[in-house]
Amino acid sequence: MCKKDSLISSELSCKSTWKPGTLIYPLPAALISCGNGNEINIMTVSWLGTICTNPPMCYISVRPERHSYDLIKKNGCFVINLTNEEMAFATDWCGVKSGKDINKFKEMNLTPLKAQVVDAPIIKESPLSIECEVVEIKELGSHHMFIANVVNILADEKYIDKNSGAFDMTKAKLIAYSHGKYYKLGEEIGHFGWSVKKK
Amino acid sequence: MCKKDSLISSELSCKSTWKPGTLIYPLPAALISCGNGNEINIMTVSWLGTICTNPPMCYISVRPERHSYDLIKKNGCFVINLTNEEMAFATDWCGVKSGKDINKFKEMNLTPLKAQVVDAPIIKESPLSIECEVVEIKELGSHHMFIANVVNILADEKYIDKNSGAFDMTKAKLIAYSHGKYYKLGEEIGHFGWSVKKK
Repeated sequence: MCKKDSLISSELSCKSTWKPGTLIYPLPAALISCGNGNEINIMTVSWLGTICTNPPMCYISVRPERHSYDLIKKNGCFVINLTNEEMAFATDWCGVKSGKDINKFKEMNLTPLKAQVVDAPIIKESPLSIECEVVEIKELGSHHMFIANVVNILADEKYIDKNSGAFDMTKAKLIAYSHGKYYKLGEEIGHFGWSVKKK
Repeated sequence: MCKKDSLISSELSCKSTWKPGTLIYPLPAALISCGNGNEINIMTVSWLGTICTNPPMCYISVRPERHSYDLIKKNGCFVINLTNEEMAFATDWCGVKSGKDINKFKEMNLTPLKAQVVDAPIIKESPLSIECEVVEIKELGSHHMFIANVVNILADEKYIDKNSGAFDMTKAKLIAYSHGKYYKLGEEIGHFGWSVKKK
């Protein structure tokens, strides 16, 4: 219990005020693969995340102008492919180029494989592919939010520890996106709950 | 343009199938400050993100059992405080402990300051505090998603470059959370658009 009036100082002199903006970081820079029938595509997205643990649900927010938008809207599904250091160049490139005129899979030497549950490709080179089924589209403004159920996960076996059977996220060498820059993940600080064990 | 049938191989032998889960990483581990009137609190959240650029909107997903849930629901606002290496211990601790019985600000030596727009505290020690006003609550399952407008940003002046006037995210030393572990951000790989300039 924490009484507010005795605790909140009104001294904001060390802070600079900015106009509202999108400054939640670091984030993933994921490759979204989508399309079925005649056409498949890839786009890079950082406006994505988990919104519920049980059932597992997530979202991606996409500008309607993007080539993948209509493919996802029409087919009702997409795949979130996590990206690692090896894929950094393709991750940036697929966020800048449009699939309207280009075969991004071919240009970036990425391999589309049929997903197991949804009717969309996964990217073979990704360490972890998350198959998603759209349940709602929220038209918020510049971006529309695709709210989705996670319906299947495909993990690359080369990152699965042979002894424990667990996926080793550290070995996957995921990259982070923060305020216009891509970073490797650095030194490990601790695991969830370490602050309590340490005491 | 990318024709699917000629491109998608059905060879999934290198992939291991998992049941659906929450595996989008790396993410922020943000400290959410909330409360007004008699009580304020802090909780740690990784299910958060940007959902729209214009207008700037974001979300946090929270279990209804958490002590902060009712405070946010009642007051209709919260603050997302980004966390850095110095705050890593407090970040983990505030995610494990409940504010029902504890004054988390006091225990972790964090300083509540009055936000500028919303009726909630910000955390002085955070490099960047994002003031949010709830516009909708979606009851998804284990977690309810608070959809919010970003209404103000407070940035710590010590991370603002005196020459350019820009906030230096690199200096802020943000931390990332990935599959149960906290990490420093490591080596910079490139900036948005580098793949095109390089060519």
